[in-house]
Amino acid sequence: MSNVKEGDWVLLYYNERKNYVVRVEKGKTFHSTHGSIDLSSLIGVPYGSYVETNIGEKLLVTKTSFMERLEGLQRTTQVIYPKDLGYILLASGVGPGSVVVEAGTGTGFLTATLAWYVRPSGRVYTYEIRKDFYQQALKNFELLGVLPYITAKNRDIRDGIEEEDVDAVLLDLPSPWEIIHEAYAKLTHGGSLTVFVPTLTQVEKTLRSLRSSDFKLIEVSESIQRKYQVTPGELRPLTLGVMHTGYIIRARKP
Amino acid sequence: MSNVKEGDWVLLYYNERKNYVVRVEKGKTFHSTHGSIDLSSLIGVPYGSYVETNIGEKLLVTKTSFMERLEGLQRTTQVIYPKDLGYILLASGVGPGSVVVEAGTGTGFLTATLAWYVRPSGRVYTYEIRKDFYQQALKNFELLGVLPYITAKNRDIRDGIEEEDVDAVLLDLPSPWEIIHEAYAKLTHGGSLTVFVPTLTQVEKTLRSLRSSDFKLIEVSESIQRKYQVTPGELRPLTLGVMHTGYIIRARKP
Amino acid sequence: MSNVKEGDWVLLYYNERKNYVVRVEKGKTFHSTHGSIDLSSLIGVPYGSYVETNIGEKLLVTKTSFMERLEGLQRTTQVIYPKDLGYILLASGVGPGSVVVEAGTGTGFLTATLAWYVRPSGRVYTYEIRKDFYQQALKNFELLGVLPYITAKNRDIRDGIEEEDVDAVLLDLPSPWEIIHEAYAKLTHGGSLTVFVPTLTQVEKTLRSLRSSDFKLIEVSESIQRKYQVTPGELRPLTLGVMHTGYIIRARKP
Amino acid sequence: MSNVKEGDWVLLYYNERKNYVVRVEKGKTFHSTHGSIDLSSLIGVPYGSYVETNIGEKLLVTKTSFMERLEGLQRTTQVIYPKDLGYILLASGVGPGSVVVEAGTGTGFLTATLAWYVRPSGRVYTYEIRKDFYQQALKNFELLGVLPYITAKNRDIRDGIEEEDVDAVLLDLPSPWEIIHEAYAKLTHGGSLTVFVPTLTQVEKTLRSLRSSDFKLIEVSESIQRKYQVTPGELRPLTLGVMHTGYIIRARKP
Repeated sequence: MSNVKEGDWVLLYYNERKNYVVRVEKGKTFHSTHGSIDLSSLIGVPYGSYVETNIGEKLLVTKTSFMERLEGLQRTTQVIYPKDLGYILLASGVGPGSVVVEAGTGTGFLTATLAWYVRPSGRVYTYEIRKDFYQQALKNFELLGVLPYITAKNRDIRDGIEEEDVDAVLLDLPSPWEIIHEAYAKLTHGGSLTVFVPTLTQVEKTLRSLRSSDFKLIEVSESIQRKYQVTPGELRPLTLGVMHTGYIIRARKP
Repeated sequence: MSNVKEGDWVLLYYNERKNYVVRVEKGKTFHSTHGSIDLSSLIGVPYGSYVETNIGEKLLVTKTSFMERLEGLQRTTQVIYPKDLGYILLASGVGPGSVVVEAGTGTGFLTATLAWYVRPSGRVYTYEIRKDFYQQALKNFELLGVLPYITAKNRDIRDGIEEEDVDAVLLDLPSPWEIIHEAYAKLTHGGSLTVFVPTLTQVEKTLRSLRSSDFKLIEVSESIQRKYQVTPGELRPLTLGVMHTGYIIRARKP
Repeated sequence: MSNVKEGDWVLLYYNERKNYVVRVEKGKTFHSTHGSIDLSSLIGVPYGSYVETNIGEKLLVTKTSFMERLEGLQRTTQVIYPKDLGYILLASGVGPGSVVVEAGTGTGFLTATLAWYVRPSGRVYTYEIRKDFYQQALKNFELLGVLPYITAKNRDIRDGIEEEDVDAVLLDLPSPWEIIHEAYAKLTHGGSLTVFVPTLTQVEKTLRSLRSSDFKLIEVSESIQRKYQVTPGELRPLTLGVMHTGYIIRARKP
Repeated sequence: MSNVKEGDWVLLYYNERKNYVVRVEKGKTFHSTHGSIDLSSLIGVPYGSYVETNIGEKLLVTKTSFMERLEGLQRTTQVIYPKDLGYILLASGVGPGSVVVEAGTGTGFLTATLAWYVRPSGRVYTYEIRKDFYQQALKNFELLGVLPYITAKNRDIRDGIEEEDVDAVLLDLPSPWEIIHEAYAKLTHGGSLTVFVPTLTQVEKTLRSLRSSDFKLIEVSESIQRKYQVTPGELRPLTLGVMHTGYIIRARKP
């Protein structure tokens, strides 16, 4: 059984609805409706044990999954949801060892997920035009421990992709159609282009651009995920939820 | 630019709707409505070039993605679809280096996907009660090149999980509730259990079993994926499609 | 062009997002973030013209549809949404002239909708066990102008359906399976039973009860409705929405 | 208990999956995998009783609902599904007494449904440019018994709507945007326009046209309906189904 170390991400579990992802840093305090805890005091505590807040509530100290750590980050932009991240990963063919170009970085959810899955020998090159996003993303990558697998650039991808023979190009930016021919040029044979856009107008423009290129095996999809109430005897989807995130367009350089 | 080698999986592309994933083996012939090709003749052909069938139709020789190779396998059982595989991967926290237990093997789609993503240092232990499925799956793993990362067992997982401190247990079998306590015992702290079942009756039974265990962070979800017609100017979801595959239940050992 | 009369329902339109359904009653005042209006002052105003609030904002006075009037009612219970009301209507076969039994009344959305469509020669008999709901529903029926087509009863339907040879029985209550045999007895040949329930556990119990009866042509369905952002050039489903309302079970007495 | 008459629509029920809607006409024979029956022989048979085919299989003779009779019609064009018909009815505000203009007639599913619900005092004026569709639709309306409530025209609606002060205009044709200004002119105050189109490109063009008109309260929606397997103990949505039919656009003349 391992113990909490400084810099660890832990999940403080009160109940199925109330649980919190925090990073253990000296001098920081966790606050919630169940009371507060000096995060330094967690260092050395065995995972799976309980700690008490200043008002006597007990929280279970649990290891975090990669997705939970992502959720724990501060967001500067709209992020891509796990349901889409998972399919993007498979549709793009990105896996251990892949060399990937991605833009724009934004908060870095997609970048970090790609980095997590190209480990240990792959690499993600990510482009971000805005300096503030770029800087926050760098910080996020360090907090998540994926910085060793990422080259982050504060640069407009429309000025050109600097890498060659990349396995996959992923675009999550407003005008992906402007980069399609450049992506084609820099992809390896069999490489994939994956685009994520929220509106159908963007889908239509991207499709037109893809049709004027040599990309093949074009697929457009969206998914609606429903989460269920987990009370036995009252099984049903939750009433309210996310109805729409975006469309995933995938194509291949033959 | 690389050339086709014996044992490669290639995609023979006729058009967006007609394209075929085949494995290049000597002495085998590919047959389609566009004519046939002696697969031996593909060896040495550069990727990205065209070959001609016996009736003069041209097919583009393209590299395959991992998902396309999966689709090229012979199926002995119902398989899990990419939309679900992607989310299972993220929800389970499986990635490079993970040690994973999985049952039942079936055709091996889930096993192979897990193996592909735990590379190079992780390992997947997969249990299958039926000898014929086990043997076909072994063959599939070899064809896909993921056998080095898999320990396949022709064994009933209800007789016990032989591994200890595993990062994730994944169950795609008719009565997952029978294995929940054993899964809890063999998971590491913070490890995940992921269950895939097609019916709500199974969801309800699994939830009851989870509630009687110490598993926490229980989530039940399903996703509906729609693919779109990619003709610019006629953008719309395809009329017919897969309305339902199964429910994904995820829980964590705290 | 007609004018607003006392007792009319009108829609006060500010813009596509901000518009309000009110009933024109003497001595009442309409309040909104765009200012207030003495509702008496609307009497005699031509539909399609503008009125001004006390702070000088202009509101377009528009006729209401039946659905908008429903939306304008005070709700005492969870109500059934238009997407489900429409399908229930068609699946139950209820139309002009139908004789219908319904329970429980609740806020009266379903009752009022059925009454609206059985006009002028049909009739809806509705049962409600709670006196407060029954009284509020009666008031709602009067406000909507459908009271002449409804017989409302403050009575537990489990004590028996008092009508005979009815064309349709509709149940929106917690334990519909308790009324299935009684519904069968009081339906005419070819009559329909329609059940609306929010959980799958209820669906399963209702199905078991239906199977033990002589009902045939059993159908279970649900629908997910997505509304779209209507800004041209930014066509996309709205991000958040209603993921789940309930399941519609329909059966027929042969 | 009533008996089958000549001209009745009956449902011949073998089991939950195999049941057939036929119209009882002298000199016609019903054929199925369960054998054949001379339809004349059904005349006078009580509803709810069994008849025997020439190979000794028993079929239950059941009354039909309006939706089942629709399903029994011969289709000349793509038709609108019940899930959409129900919502169109409510969103358009069409009910007993409504005066409605509709185009194009096509097979007549929407026309007939509207006619069924405007009974007895309303009327549906339907326009169809193609003579063959118009003629088949007329026949369908007679078979369904809704002809008394319909004025069918073999005429291009783009040449103008001949009716005035109509309560609702409904368009199910390729270029609805061409008729939007004419629809506005002929609608009564508070009247509704409802458009059904399969592609998003059509939605976008219709929205642009609506924006350039004085229509208000614009709504775009789509619904995904899932039907469930009704075997108790194996509750689940059916695997394959209709993923997409079309988008419903609704607007109002204020």
